This record gives sequence, C-alpha cells and structure tokens, in this order.
Amino acid sequence: MKPDWLNDPVKLPDQTCASLASARQGQLTKPAGSLGRLEELAIRLSALQGAEYPSIEKIHITVFAADHGVAAAGVSAFPQEVTVQMVANFSAGGAAISVLAKHNEAHLEVVDVGTLREPGDLPGVISQRAGAGTANLQVEDAMRVEQLTIALNAGRAAVLRAKERGADLFIGGDMGIGNTTPAAALGCVLLNADPGQLAGPGTGLDSEGVAHKAKVLREALSRYDNLNNQPLEALRCLGGFEIAALVGAYISCAQLGIPALVDGYITTAAALVAVREQPEIRDWLLFSHQSAEPGHQAMLKSLDANPLLSLGMRLGEGSGAAVAIPLLKAACELHNNMATFADAGVTES
Amino acid sequence: MKPDWLNDPVKLPDQTCASLASARQGQLTKPAGSLGRLEELAIRLSALQGAEYPSIEKIHITVFAADHGVAAAGVSAFPQEVTVQMVANFSAGGAAISVLAKHNEAHLEVVDVGTLREPGDLPGVISQRAGAGTANLQVEDAMRVEQLTIALNAGRAAVLRAKERGADLFIGGDMGIGNTTPAAALGCVLLNADPGQLAGPGTGLDSEGVAHKAKVLREALSRYDNLNNQPLEALRCLGGFEIAALVGAYISCAQLGIPALVDGYITTAAALVAVREQPEIRDWLLFSHQSAEPGHQAMLKSLDANPLLSLGMRLGEGSGAAVAIPLLKAACELHNNMATFADAGVTES
Repeated sequence: MKPDWLNDPVKLPDQTCASLASARQGQLTKPAGSLGRLEELAIRLSALQGAEYPSIEKIHITVFAADHGVAAAGVSAFPQEVTVQMVANFSAGGAAISVLAKHNEAHLEVVDVGTLREPGDLPGVISQRAGAGTANLQVEDAMRVEQLTIALNAGRAAVLRAKERGADLFIGGDMGIGNTTPAAALGCVLLNADPGQLAGPGTGLDSEGVAHKAKVLREALSRYDNLNNQPLEALRCLGGFEIAALVGAYISCAQLGIPALVDGYITTAAALVAVREQPEIRDWLLFSHQSAEPGHQAMLKSLDANPLLSLGMRLGEGSGAAVAIPLLKAACELHNNMATFADAGVTES
Repeated sequence: MKPDWLNDPVKLPDQTCASLASARQGQLTKPAGSLGRLEELAIRLSALQGAEYPSIEKIHITVFAADHGVAAAGVSAFPQEVTVQMVANFSAGGAAISVLAKHNEAHLEVVDVGTLREPGDLPGVISQRAGAGTANLQVEDAMRVEQLTIALNAGRAAVLRAKERGADLFIGGDMGIGNTTPAAALGCVLLNADPGQLAGPGTGLDSEGVAHKAKVLREALSRYDNLNNQPLEALRCLGGFEIAALVGAYISCAQLGIPALVDGYITTAAALVAVREQPEIRDWLLFSHQSAEPGHQAMLKSLDANPLLSLGMRLGEGSGAAVAIPLLKAACELHNNMATFADAGVTES
C-alpha cells in the first residue's frame, strides 16, 4: 500500500558546483570564512540547485492542515475548531504565514488533508482529504493504511506543483490543533525517548497540562513494540495527516531536487520520519529555526541539524522557515554579487 | 573639548505606544508569545519610533573607515593598505555591505574618518578626517583630544544626515585594518578584563598571533590607571577614529530618536563606550548578531544584550546588522498586518 514513488531514488547534490562555489567564496573581498554560515549556505545551495550561482527567488510554501482525534484527550490550549478557522485565515491573508509569504513574495497554498469540518471552497485552499481528522492515538491507530497513502500523496502533489512552478525552495507548514502530541509521539518512538522528555507546552499548556500530555503519550506508546525501525508504520499509528503529508513532501523534494527549508517542531518530526525512511533525504533539508518547544532540540540533534535562527518562536504554519528566507537570500546575494580580490584590486592576507 | 551636543538629553521611548503594541500582539491570531522575539522587537520598535505600527523602511547605513597605528605592531592578518582599498570597494558596490545595502534597499554611505592614505574623490564617500590613522596605542595615546572631537562629530553628522533623510533605523559599520585591537583594549578597560580574555583572531590570526596581540594590549594598558570610569578618555587613549565616530553616532541616535542596530565586535565596543558615558543610550540600541570573535560575548553580557543572530560572522562593515534587517522588517510586517482573533473569527484559547 506504499505509494510507488516512495522508493524513487533521491537526487544527488552536485559536488562540482559545490567546489566551484567554495572556490569563489575564497576569492570574495572578505577574510576567508568571515561570513560564517552564510558561506556554507551558499555552497550548499549551489550543490542542491546544481548552479555555481544559487538563487532563492521562487519560493513555494504549502501549509498542510488536519485535525487530530487526540484533541479529545485535552492536549491543547485551543479548541479543535481553530484548525479550520485558521485555514480560512490563511486564505484571507490574516495569519502569520500569509503575511510572511506576501512579504517574501512567496507562493502560498493550503492543503486540507483532513480537518474535522470541511473548510468549504476558499481561495488558495486545495482539498486532498484523508478523513475528518485522525482517530485518537491515545486509544487506537491514528490512521488506516489507505489514509496514510492519501496524506503522503498530498505531500507529493504539493512538491510536484512546486516543481511545475519552477520553485527553487520548498517550505512546508503545519496547522492542526493538538499536533504537538503526535509529533512528540513520533519523536519518542524514533529517538527511543521518554514522553517526559518530548512533551511540551505547545500553544500554551501549563505544567499540569504538559504532565497530562505525557501521560496520554505513554498510554499511546504502550500499545506498540518495535516501531523504532518502522518509521512509516509509526507515522500511521501515531502521526497526523498533515505530518504524513510533510513526510511525503520532504521525500519528494529530495527525489525531485528541490531544497526544503524545515520549519519547527511538527515539521522536524516529519523530517525525522522521512530521513529514517531514506537517509539520503537529509542532504536536501535545511533547518530554519530552533523552536521554543523543548522537545525540538532532541529531534534536531538526532538529525545533526543546527538551525539558522533561535528566536523563541513556536507557531508552526511554516512561519519560522519563512522568517529565515532572507538569510538564504542574503547568502545568495553575497555569493553572487560581491567583488573578488582581483576585481576590486584589494590585497589578500 | 567635548562637543557640546554630547550632553544633550537622550530621548525617552514612548511607553504609551509600547502598551498599545503589546495589547495588539495579544489580539493577533496566534498563541500568545508564539512569535517569540519578533513580538518583543515589534513592541520595542513601537516605543522607539513612537508609533503603534512601527516600520523599517528607510534604513541609513554609514560605514566609518580609519587606520590604526597599532597595525605596525603586526596585529592583523591583512596589510594596512586594505582599509583604503576597501573604501573604494564599498563605493564601487563590491563589498559585502554594498551588496547587502542594495539588496535591503538601504542608503549606504562611507565616511573616511582617517585612513592612512586619502581615498580620493569617490561616489558615496564623505571625508571627515581626524588624521592619517591613529598613533600606535602600544606606545602612546591613540589620538589627541581634538582628533577625538573630529571623530565624534563625524558620527554625529552621519546621524543628522540619517535624520534628514527620515531614517527609521541607523546602522553603523566599521572598516579599519587592525581595529579588533583597539576594540579589545576598550573592552579590557571598561570590563576590567584581561587581554587574554578579549584578544581574538580578528580577520585570521593564528594562536601565536593572538598571543602577540594580547601582549601588545598588555603593554598599552600598563600605561594607564583609572580609565575604567572615564569612557571617553579610554576612547581617546586606546580607541580608533571609526570607533569614536560610532560612539558619536550611537549617542546621537539616542538623542535624536533613531533606533540603532549594532553590528559585531567593533561596533559593540563603541556601544559599550557610549552606554558607559550615558546609560540611557542603551534603550536605543538593538543588537544584531553574535560575532565569531570570542571577546564579543563578554561585551554583550555587560550590555545585557542578546543578539538576534548567531551565524559565525566576523566581517564588520555593518554586515551582520544588515543581515538582521529582515528580522526587524518581519517583526513589523507581522505586527502591522496580521488579523486579530475578532477580525478573523478565530476562537481564542
């Protein structure tokens, strides 16, 4: 029941371009290495885009929205109806990601992968529903195999649209009240971590709420054995539709050769599943920000990821990634447009 | 001999605007606090700009360039002629700050406060020279009182031009081969720190070079007593013309009511002098990035500053501040353009 495309090969980064870009960085009018991570970023984007002069001009942002049966267990500070309300807010331009997408001249689309109530016909919202929310993972598998397939395919389809539009960067975002619980569940399984380590306040639980969330996670995890080496089965049992769509999207980005800028906690859980499923995917993932959600750090460490920003953000929607877009743009601008020592007649060290 | 304007009062941030901005942040469609430091930034910019809806549209960048007598002591990986060569590179658009200023649609100007050789007539370069470089602080006072005055006034003049242009943000940059040595000297004096703690590799010294730099600093510091509580006298004895201009600029920003985004190591040394001279100035300083120069951390801590970025940059020129501009813009865009819960019909927690 796995979609066929899941086993397609991952594209290899272009090492020749990386070497050319690295040599160019050494000739620009600055002390070697003095642009720090902006130099690494330019070289990495060169390799991923197969271009000595990389660019971040056409950015495709897809926010995947879905509801979570586990919300019934009282694991969120917000009521479940907010998921579909926020889909309307994304569409109307009032959400954080709407503002950031417009400001960064990025294309924004929303995919309803399975909100509880259907949002209806809204501009920029695509319907590719796997159901009216997942089942409650506290007491049963979150989704059936065919639902997982629909959600993975929804991620694939988003990246195919990005490819069609000529995107040079893909950003996936998430919206789903309660979704820090499935994200933490996946983290616990794939990192062999205790729920006490990965359960956090999400949108605003107090310490009692966090303890309850850890208890819900323990109950859920107690039903399964050996999910650690079965990332897609873990995703089916403990994930969410939007998380599965993100997994499908990240795998597709690596196969189709589009760099993906990972957002925060939820998207990193999806990245973890994707990389466990196919480790070569890691090359195609750039990590944008360190979330305030405490469990994020452990997932990032496991992915050997050092995000660009640490601003205490914890909103999701792809908002942290969108805030980091200008850093990638700056890296490209500097790489492509600075003068070399020879051009500028500046003496080298 | 102090310029008269030095004792002008510092403008008070507008607390009414800060309260209005803070209330607005609580009504936007996101969990409270979930935009992390971007929320704080928006509120702070509201207070500094005296506007419920702050904006970062007109950015004024001034790079102050000067040479340093202490270069003769072999404290830099680059020869001293690079200072004036880089002034030409700024003017021609090939330097990092040139590229970043253009990309961010910021106004860029360069002020020659005293390079060894005069750069000649170059577009965008203003001459306000305090001398042909400072004296060698290893063996004598870096500058005379009248030179300090010229340099402080050069900073004042830059901020007056920024004000004239309606700037809503000022960025000061530095260019001066050898200038991590005077910056470290000022840090040692004002923080009561040992040169071994604040001397770093700058543009690329090896460990032997760093040890030599610490020795040069020790010799310089051994000539003085009680500079700790005389920040401007410390600046005269141990600073540089571009550092003094930055001190004048930061003091003027606070007096004239323009927020200043501080760059890295050199500019933070200037900020430290300015704040020690007049503590209320601190309100007007935003800190952009943590430099790779190891001594930067101690200065930031003393200023209670937590920079927005930590990307391993160590270039100067205002480049780290320029890379952080989009974070300020994002904070304003989100603050000004997101929908409220009421507008969007989204249920609150």
